[in-house]
Amino acid sequence: MSSRAGIVVTGTEVLTGRVVDRNGPWVVERLRDLGVDIAHIAVVGDRPDDMTAALRFFRDEGMDLVVTSGGLGPTADDLTATVVGEFQGRAMILDEALQDRIREILRPLAARWKGLDPSALEEGTRKQAVIPDGATVLEPVGTAPGLVVTPAGDGPGPTIVVLPGPPSELQPMWAAAAETEPFRAATAGRTSYEQHMLRLFGIPESEIAETLRQASASGVDLDALEVTTCMRSGEIEVVTRFEPAAASAYAALEALIRERHADTLFSDDGSSVDVQVAALLREREWTVSTAESCTGGLIAGRLTNLAGSSEYVAGGLVVYSNAAKTALAGVPAELIAAHGAVSGEVADALALGALRALGTDIAIGVTGIAGPGGGSEEKPVGTVCFAVATADGVATSRRIVIPGSRAAVRERSTVVGLHLLRGVLRGEADVGAGVGAR
Amino acid sequence: MSSRAGIVVTGTEVLTGRVVDRNGPWVVERLRDLGVDIAHIAVVGDRPDDMTAALRFFRDEGMDLVVTSGGLGPTADDLTATVVGEFQGRAMILDEALQDRIREILRPLAARWKGLDPSALEEGTRKQAVIPDGATVLEPVGTAPGLVVTPAGDGPGPTIVVLPGPPSELQPMWAAAAETEPFRAATAGRTSYEQHMLRLFGIPESEIAETLRQASASGVDLDALEVTTCMRSGEIEVVTRFEPAAASAYAALEALIRERHADTLFSDDGSSVDVQVAALLREREWTVSTAESCTGGLIAGRLTNLAGSSEYVAGGLVVYSNAAKTALAGVPAELIAAHGAVSGEVADALALGALRALGTDIAIGVTGIAGPGGGSEEKPVGTVCFAVATADGVATSRRIVIPGSRAAVRERSTVVGLHLLRGVLRGEADVGAGVGAR
Repeated sequence: MSSRAGIVVTGTEVLTGRVVDRNGPWVVERLRDLGVDIAHIAVVGDRPDDMTAALRFFRDEGMDLVVTSGGLGPTADDLTATVVGEFQGRAMILDEALQDRIREILRPLAARWKGLDPSALEEGTRKQAVIPDGATVLEPVGTAPGLVVTPAGDGPGPTIVVLPGPPSELQPMWAAAAETEPFRAATAGRTSYEQHMLRLFGIPESEIAETLRQASASGVDLDALEVTTCMRSGEIEVVTRFEPAAASAYAALEALIRERHADTLFSDDGSSVDVQVAALLREREWTVSTAESCTGGLIAGRLTNLAGSSEYVAGGLVVYSNAAKTALAGVPAELIAAHGAVSGEVADALALGALRALGTDIAIGVTGIAGPGGGSEEKPVGTVCFAVATADGVATSRRIVIPGSRAAVRERSTVVGLHLLRGVLRGEADVGAGVGAR
Repeated sequence: MSSRAGIVVTGTEVLTGRVVDRNGPWVVERLRDLGVDIAHIAVVGDRPDDMTAALRFFRDEGMDLVVTSGGLGPTADDLTATVVGEFQGRAMILDEALQDRIREILRPLAARWKGLDPSALEEGTRKQAVIPDGATVLEPVGTAPGLVVTPAGDGPGPTIVVLPGPPSELQPMWAAAAETEPFRAATAGRTSYEQHMLRLFGIPESEIAETLRQASASGVDLDALEVTTCMRSGEIEVVTRFEPAAASAYAALEALIRERHADTLFSDDGSSVDVQVAALLREREWTVSTAESCTGGLIAGRLTNLAGSSEYVAGGLVVYSNAAKTALAGVPAELIAAHGAVSGEVADALALGALRALGTDIAIGVTGIAGPGGGSEEKPVGTVCFAVATADGVATSRRIVIPGSRAAVRERSTVVGLHLLRGVLRGEADVGAGVGAR
């Protein structure tokens, strides 16, 4: 029988969306890597009864392991340790050695903030060192210790792994949690899965649905494959998870996708367009620059997101005003007057201007109407013009209309820009086939 | 008795974090606005049994209303309508009038994509028009209809509102869902709450915990207030929710926070630093520009995120390489050689350079080591130098060390940059008191 796990993400700030939860999905991926099956993430507010109800649900569903995140801080609304201790039938005790270690961690921090109240700090330290009796302590990465708590008296029920809320603390603590004896025992029934991700750009999701129907009709055993398709910012991800015995069914499906979607399949190893652009730039030993209007720096932000990007990103121009387009990218004011700031001509001039101003081998120019205002009949909100230039001049250009909100237009434009860069870097004849009209 | 609701977010892509769920928290906020209490969001994969288990959990917990998002698409892994129909004891039927309406919606889309398979499209249309018998249909915003489904035969159990996954479809459909008779009946027990948000910048969370303890000690009835504190990117949010009878308790708490944290409380109406910077720029009729190294365009991206930002954002320079710092922002190569690219001197020169190159009234310069490489003993990873310049010269500058990952350093630097801009725009004597050493 395979091991199953549930995840409880705590925090009213997560429940109400003031903070986006990154822990639940991250833990899901780690557990899936281990071959542990995950059915649910429960997001609950900072209320003991709601947290207990979620733990009870997972126990009733027969989970072997429950992982919680959050609620270990120094404030009174952080209650996870107490709730879990009670749920597992364990008394709460002060671990004085742990209290000393937390105090040591806080010493340099306390020195940095002037005018801190020492009694407030000591109160918080004490709170964080009160743990369920018999729990395994995971050493703090920040100031909060993690815990692994089994049911008292070896009773039935899940092993509960209690982790802090900040991803920067939770993630480094994971390896220690997974090495504890109770964790290993709870996940002894793990099975191994393979997972493959294909990414496509520039076709609607219904086309993939049709490919899956064709695969089924031609005899591919789709029941042996867990296929998930998902569309975002114009990219479709097809993720397939299967037990080793189903490898030939997967191979047949992948072959069909390769055949039917040769021009839009851009990644067969799960790599993002960002990583591919970076690899192509390194391979060609090229540098890149940007001149962005409607995306306002987001393409440069994406290009510099990867570690080591200083090797190939020279920089960029954010040319929001017309004056900036002229001053920084050298776009003639007359060109803007004649064609409008959002035009293929200005996009071309922006790409060439960035190339020149930053002395790079390749550059992208983007200008568009992100909205909500500024649209016209001829150029509705969402109209965006792109150009990619190299030493040989403008290599490709596009004009498209992107539906949706201001944020959606900016986000999608950023993705389209990266795909156009990729196409030119690969020397494709028909750059970014899915990007719409030229 | 107050009404209670649960939320089921479906989709393996959400469970595994390939897509960040924005629907759960959005629906929580809408329901809270209506005075409906939310205890849980359940995130489940695209598996019927798991989805049914989540619905059963909410029924067992006595919820009056359950809202689901996702799983209404044209592909075979979209199963929500069927699962909900079965759970409520209703047969699935083809709604032919609905099928016609979806076909109409798809007609222009189908015309735009060349070489689409018409039978694939028709198959998807049919699937989306098969609904539980007796369900209330919410008209499609994209192509997927929403549904409101009560238990068959007026049996016990929650009313289930079934909404599509894309936020751009779910959000516009919400009003129609809330106006249906079954929704109103399920939420008849709503009570009204008030909610206030305070934001502080530059103190640790333990200081707020101490303030809450002092409030309690001085007789403020904290049990009548639901207080949540949350720290992210250096900002602390204190959100308090209470019934009208507790208004005086809240007033006493807010007064104490204002007194104890006068220098770090920057928002008492929930407004973000982004919105405040925008308002200050409009008020002074000033334009702004940026020169960013380690943040690589993220500050410009934030400044241009708000609609109407073209009124005050001229543009910016992304000066990732040293050559770009010199070419675009006019930072003398000798200055970089003498002090290093990450230095207060270069930050000052960047701010002044952006001010000059873009001809703005105020400008910010940022240079730092985002990591993971590039650190030294004197300048460890996370060292970031900031400067804000106006026509009078450099108005303020800071050097800080930000802990955490490359992404954390870049994100936190962006927030610090916005706070420094805010401080200078407000003419504060001690700009950004919490931003660390000068």
